[in-house]
Amino acid sequence: MTTAADTTTAAASSNATAGKVITCYAAVARGPHEPLVLEEVEVDPPQKMEVRLRILYTSVCHTDLSAWRSEVPEGQRAFPRILGHEAVGVVESVGEGVTDVGEGDYVIPIFNGECGECAYCRSPTTNLCRRYRVDPLRSVMRSDGACRFRSRADGRPIFHFLNTSTFSQYTVLDSACVVNIHRSPAASDRADADVPPPPPPSPRHLKMMSLFSCCVSTGVGAAWNVANVQAGSSVAIFGLGALGLAAAQGAKVRGASKIIGVDINPQKFIKGKAMGVTDFVNPMDSSKPVHERIREMTGGGGVDHSLECVGNPQVLREAFLSTHDGWGQTVLVGIYSTSQLLPLHPMELFDGRSITGTIFGGVRGKSQLHHIAHRCLQPDMNMEELITHELPFEKINEAMHLLADGKALRCIMQL
Amino acid sequence: MTTAADTTTAAASSNATAGKVITCYAAVARGPHEPLVLEEVEVDPPQKMEVRLRILYTSVCHTDLSAWRSEVPEGQRAFPRILGHEAVGVVESVGEGVTDVGEGDYVIPIFNGECGECAYCRSPTTNLCRRYRVDPLRSVMRSDGACRFRSRADGRPIFHFLNTSTFSQYTVLDSACVVNIHRSPAASDRADADVPPPPPPSPRHLKMMSLFSCCVSTGVGAAWNVANVQAGSSVAIFGLGALGLAAAQGAKVRGASKIIGVDINPQKFIKGKAMGVTDFVNPMDSSKPVHERIREMTGGGGVDHSLECVGNPQVLREAFLSTHDGWGQTVLVGIYSTSQLLPLHPMELFDGRSITGTIFGGVRGKSQLHHIAHRCLQPDMNMEELITHELPFEKINEAMHLLADGKALRCIMQL
Repeated sequence: MTTAADTTTAAASSNATAGKVITCYAAVARGPHEPLVLEEVEVDPPQKMEVRLRILYTSVCHTDLSAWRSEVPEGQRAFPRILGHEAVGVVESVGEGVTDVGEGDYVIPIFNGECGECAYCRSPTTNLCRRYRVDPLRSVMRSDGACRFRSRADGRPIFHFLNTSTFSQYTVLDSACVVNIHRSPAASDRADADVPPPPPPSPRHLKMMSLFSCCVSTGVGAAWNVANVQAGSSVAIFGLGALGLAAAQGAKVRGASKIIGVDINPQKFIKGKAMGVTDFVNPMDSSKPVHERIREMTGGGGVDHSLECVGNPQVLREAFLSTHDGWGQTVLVGIYSTSQLLPLHPMELFDGRSITGTIFGGVRGKSQLHHIAHRCLQPDMNMEELITHELPFEKINEAMHLLADGKALRCIMQL
Repeated sequence: MTTAADTTTAAASSNATAGKVITCYAAVARGPHEPLVLEEVEVDPPQKMEVRLRILYTSVCHTDLSAWRSEVPEGQRAFPRILGHEAVGVVESVGEGVTDVGEGDYVIPIFNGECGECAYCRSPTTNLCRRYRVDPLRSVMRSDGACRFRSRADGRPIFHFLNTSTFSQYTVLDSACVVNIHRSPAASDRADADVPPPPPPSPRHLKMMSLFSCCVSTGVGAAWNVANVQAGSSVAIFGLGALGLAAAQGAKVRGASKIIGVDINPQKFIKGKAMGVTDFVNPMDSSKPVHERIREMTGGGGVDHSLECVGNPQVLREAFLSTHDGWGQTVLVGIYSTSQLLPLHPMELFDGRSITGTIFGGVRGKSQLHHIAHRCLQPDMNMEELITHELPFEKINEAMHLLADGKALRCIMQL
């Protein structure tokens, strides 16, 4: 495989491709658990209020694995499909009406879009846009119910995923799902046109930025927006994957006095320590329930906040019971793929413990993501620790397995 | 039966009884579902930081019915027991160390006490005191684990209930569970000793005040403290008993634009209308789920707040689904006596709907109850509507049945 810029049909100048079908490589999921197939796909031009991106870097997240394993009811499975939602890219062209991003801008795709106009986007209480909120079952574009991807081999459509589909050299998104992080020097509306344009982002910066399209924003947002961790408070984080570690970093810079990491994989504790975790609990070390151990570690009362980043109902119950009665809060960050209901009795909610689900860490992509990113790139945070591996895009199946086996936090692939 | 003031051992002057055992009448629950027995009991003097009250008026609440039916595990049943927690009384004497109430003060007993000193009372986030929070399983005094009641007939102890036990002419409470509403004119620390003391509260006022010890505070507090209903918002109230109707009044004076009452008993709708309910849903009128009907009544979106005042898990689910995604909040007000777990899937918490349990409407008894009462006694509120019946104390079993059968909201009994 060559990188996108080298493919014959995707010319070096984006002007030459605007309005035309682009042929490029994508990693296509053709069936549950089947290895992704790197194949040529045709990518339609963006329609009204859509954006076509060239993906520069992407990585695998657990939500991609869930979709790949097809952990949804059978009638709702969509194959072939282009997965992937954690990435950074550059705008190749925009459709009619798109004004906030343009050709050459560096952007982050967001699976949980923000139209900025609906009752939800106007409400201060939610980051769920009426039209462009995350929807793992949606597999076509909203405007016309069609796919922008086709197989080069048989001409049949290939489904979209999570508003983004970043496991492709080129992809098409609704503009509500694209966040501008670096305006192109060529942009006609640049107010500072008479000063030299800033240099393009470095590869290191772009790799970091790709993490803001999912794991970093979700984890940090859970700690900042949802838990609203305060100085001196105590936090337990269940599951020390990328989400949990990002949350630990978020809690650390807010001044949490105790950050307890819970994971059955002791290897995670090394990285956890580097990212702010102060104490560790391995559930396998003792037959005593984790919540009892956490209460003992916090003077008997429990933590102020627990973050459940695993997506397991029994872990949820432990996380809930680990919090202090009267004010303890459990934030649900992981995705629950099983059909099991909440293992809590209604009366257990009368002890002053609350439970809150969150999508994308409560972050509004278009209007808040750049603030989060700016803060996370300050020297007192080291989100780069989450990048444990780098592989070429051709090895995407290896990247999937590294994550599934708990060996990688994030494996960045260059397209 | 005579009223307490007339009994031979309980002298007219409280000075004569201070420090002595008082013999009086109480309605004793001797076993699950057995009619309460009006019998003579001996009431010990208050110990350190305790208060002995003469109860003036009391009424029956569903929590009394639950305890009477003994809806707890068999090992945790406590009989014989003096139930009752909604009341108003006058202080007969106080134990060592009690300073905020004194002989002759009119007071409200509160089942959810406030010591004012523990980490919980000092936290702005909870009204659950470490020591004196509601505990339906506690049946003895905290200080010494003993009962202050004995049977006159056999000398055996009679258990306490909900920190209060108001189905007795005299009762003993921890001072953390007593709220002063009218300081005695004889109080030695009266700053205004040279002006004539205010007249004692009228019987009408006292009957109203008795409701603040449970149903009014819980319902209004749920609307004000927990839901924090704002002008123009929409509210659905499941169960139009006294709690639900008090909540409706609370929502009304906050300016809610739509207050939907849900009850299977259409008789409740008449009173509901008088107390602020604007729309009604009888689940029995249609096979369509209640949440679908409520969404249709609110432009498709659902209400901003739902209050579940029934204590039924399936009703809880309907209440939850009746709220608007993105920001809808369900407040659990009813008590869940069944063992059924929450019928919700964890992913249902990711749509921005929250669920919150509340005890005593989030009201801090000692420090906030008088503000709530003052507001509720303004002319734009009519909590007196909740008093549908009055009976002499001897007819307490009739009062129990009136409530159990849904015929009474509150039946006030004079002792």
